[in-house]
Amino acid sequence: MLSPSIREELIAIVGAKWFRDDTESLVSYSYDATPLYQSMPDGVIFPSSTEEVSAIMKVCAKHKIPVVTRGAGSNLCAGVVPLHGGIVLVMTRMNRLIEIDQDNLTATFQTGLNTKQFHMAVEDTGLFYPPDPSSMIICTMGGNIALGAGGLRGLKYGTTKDYVIGLEAVLANGDIIRTGGKLVKDVAGYDLTRLLVGSGGTLAVMTEATVKLVPKPAYRRAMLAIFSDLPASARAVSQIIANRITPCTLEFMDQATIKVVEAFAKIGLPVEAEAILAIEQDGDEAQVEKDLKLIEQVCLQAGAIQVKVAATPEEGAKVMEARRNALAALSRLRPTTILEDATVPRSKLADMVLEVQRIAAKYNVQICTFGHAGDGNLHPTAMTDARDEEEIHRVEQAFADIFDAAIKLGGTITGEHGVGHVKAPYLEWKVGATGIDIMKRLKAAFDPDGLLNPGKLFAETKKRIVFKQPEEAGAAEASAAAGEKEGV
Amino acid sequence: MLSPSIREELIAIVGAKWFRDDTESLVSYSYDATPLYQSMPDGVIFPSSTEEVSAIMKVCAKHKIPVVTRGAGSNLCAGVVPLHGGIVLVMTRMNRLIEIDQDNLTATFQTGLNTKQFHMAVEDTGLFYPPDPSSMIICTMGGNIALGAGGLRGLKYGTTKDYVIGLEAVLANGDIIRTGGKLVKDVAGYDLTRLLVGSGGTLAVMTEATVKLVPKPAYRRAMLAIFSDLPASARAVSQIIANRITPCTLEFMDQATIKVVEAFAKIGLPVEAEAILAIEQDGDEAQVEKDLKLIEQVCLQAGAIQVKVAATPEEGAKVMEARRNALAALSRLRPTTILEDATVPRSKLADMVLEVQRIAAKYNVQICTFGHAGDGNLHPTAMTDARDEEEIHRVEQAFADIFDAAIKLGGTITGEHGVGHVKAPYLEWKVGATGIDIMKRLKAAFDPDGLLNPGKLFAETKKRIVFKQPEEAGAAEASAAAGEKEGV
Repeated sequence: MLSPSIREELIAIVGAKWFRDDTESLVSYSYDATPLYQSMPDGVIFPSSTEEVSAIMKVCAKHKIPVVTRGAGSNLCAGVVPLHGGIVLVMTRMNRLIEIDQDNLTATFQTGLNTKQFHMAVEDTGLFYPPDPSSMIICTMGGNIALGAGGLRGLKYGTTKDYVIGLEAVLANGDIIRTGGKLVKDVAGYDLTRLLVGSGGTLAVMTEATVKLVPKPAYRRAMLAIFSDLPASARAVSQIIANRITPCTLEFMDQATIKVVEAFAKIGLPVEAEAILAIEQDGDEAQVEKDLKLIEQVCLQAGAIQVKVAATPEEGAKVMEARRNALAALSRLRPTTILEDATVPRSKLADMVLEVQRIAAKYNVQICTFGHAGDGNLHPTAMTDARDEEEIHRVEQAFADIFDAAIKLGGTITGEHGVGHVKAPYLEWKVGATGIDIMKRLKAAFDPDGLLNPGKLFAETKKRIVFKQPEEAGAAEASAAAGEKEGV
Repeated sequence: MLSPSIREELIAIVGAKWFRDDTESLVSYSYDATPLYQSMPDGVIFPSSTEEVSAIMKVCAKHKIPVVTRGAGSNLCAGVVPLHGGIVLVMTRMNRLIEIDQDNLTATFQTGLNTKQFHMAVEDTGLFYPPDPSSMIICTMGGNIALGAGGLRGLKYGTTKDYVIGLEAVLANGDIIRTGGKLVKDVAGYDLTRLLVGSGGTLAVMTEATVKLVPKPAYRRAMLAIFSDLPASARAVSQIIANRITPCTLEFMDQATIKVVEAFAKIGLPVEAEAILAIEQDGDEAQVEKDLKLIEQVCLQAGAIQVKVAATPEEGAKVMEARRNALAALSRLRPTTILEDATVPRSKLADMVLEVQRIAAKYNVQICTFGHAGDGNLHPTAMTDARDEEEIHRVEQAFADIFDAAIKLGGTITGEHGVGHVKAPYLEWKVGATGIDIMKRLKAAFDPDGLLNPGKLFAETKKRIVFKQPEEAGAAEASAAAGEKEGV
């Protein structure tokens, strides 16, 4: 509960209309798109300018009030659940596209800007902003930057990390900093821009950003390669890369996913196939056609039972749209859908999919796997029911095993969703105790009182998670993080 | 001076052959490629493994001995001058190319590896590592990573920052950390990889790195566009970009540079031209030829008096080689050559070149300007004489004005050379007092005792530099950093 005087200080900054602490508002901002997590804030505030954000931060710093910065709340890591109460700072009023600079191939905007709207505005000028998280219709650019969002085009174009070149941010004490600029080359001091990208609201409140743009590809075409066995699909991925082709999109769906997506989208996916690759290339028309021909050959040689090149751009768009909607399709099956993003080096793709299948069988849970084959970023997705505590426990055990398997294959616990609260207990598995220690020191350098998004990135009480058999490798670390699921 | 017991501890780690403190060795490692700076170390050590580096760091931490990590010493920012004495840690024995992973398109190597040798090994496999600093024949990959090196291909391909995806590093206390991996997507915690890239040896000793590779372009072709006036050349750069072409290289030379380079390389450069653009495109042959035709038209429309497309790859290579050797050519003119790399948004290129010319005239110093037009990264280069104190003072005044002008145009004090010691007094102009404060906190988080490369990045005593007219804008900041040149 905020005291009446703090309430007044905050209202004086944004006006009564833009501060809320009625129950309905507090409940509305007590959760995000992540299943199973909820915690009530003490207030919700909607700033309209960087100066207002700065003033809010000064009030919160003075009174030691936690601040959770939020865009659309579409993240999948409980990244903006206000675990320690305090203020939810909603950035959606700060949604102005400030400039598309066609000479310098940059765009500058307030971070509350919707990603899809931004994409459309950029493409209207003949330019292109590649990062395309599946949530782009609803998410904000600020959310993408806070979590280092990826998407379907990561293989060829990289992710959000690779595009942000300048930031305006408000520090925990209310100071405003500007990093980078409209500069492709800038080595003036530590790269604060890239440190803030992916920091998940734990280091600063990002208010404005400048990103690089590229020329919009003149042409794009999609194809579908259908496989009756999983290893053949992975072989095809390797062989495409070995032939020095970099498709803009190279997506994988396992049979379980194919069936569900087809039932949802009805676009004629082969439900009997064990795996499909949805492949898209963009660029100059002649080059794209040449690449697609070679990809077709490679897939057939690798053992594809059929390759279908989209006859029209619309047909291609439909295939990609279906893949983009995989989560929506899967979430119709059971009450609760938990989507993860364990990521491995591309060459370990088949190993990882087989591991997921083995682990799902071991714990008797239903897990579909799809994802970005080109960059080894898989989305094993569990269909479950939050009301069934015993089943949820098995799902958590399965995901712990999946993260462990990913790391053993040279991978990571999260490719593009971020650590947030959900994966905090596993972070040490990837970065080690020394890595955690350094990251905590960085956090303290920016936010000595721990007011920015507390409870994220670093496991707090080790209470949630995790099952591990003591005889399994990594048992020492695992048991250190072990404990009971927190009741939410 | 190291005590006999410390000496013994260090020798016990590497063997007597690889620790040196004879005068000749100390003098050899008292300076780098930067004119005017020299300071004696107390010892020079050549580790052969990460474990040895770790052991050395533990000894230095225990006895609070400064450590300056060094590759080839080719930097231009006094980045590895041992200003506080201590140990110079020379990485050149740790030069093993560990792996080129053709499935994952990555390479992993020890950081003492020579850049040119690395390029050749990668290209032998049909892959490509784009960052190409002009010093690549002599520099090391570790140096490139420590300073975030750029090169001629930054416009299309980005710089070192964009390629490093994993690091092994030894912290100030001797702990070894590993960041990232063979992963294009990884958002597990703060991006330590990208924080260490460009940190100039002030945060950790980088021992191993993993970088992304791309397919090697099948074809490349160069051309030269000749201009009788400077603004026309800048217009051509803008128009190439406006036509959505991204050449791999887009280099600028002013008349003064053209004359000197031609006298050196004798390849038929037009010494009467006021500016030339050396342009190269790579990729699929048909696409390259199409792009070059369009670039030719654009240059002529923008006012080029002549456009020469290289008849053969050798002719093209010669043009690019001549540009790459601009520094060598310029350094023949006078005893001391000081090369800087003020960088501006691409659209401000002509403004910046004109500012450099105005400033050179104002202080009556000889400054040639060349650089990477495509990414706004200019190298104003002063030909002077270190023995003439009065002239050197004017050169320093001119460079201070040049940095100031770059920042006013939305640019930065260094695009690809790093801050090191030379530009430390100017860093605050770019990042502000709050930026400096945060960077100092980051430094303390990694290196609480300040043992790693002390005297770099942060101005210590504000003793060197800087002249400013009180009536000029930015005078307050400038005078805060003002003082006398340090005697070196």
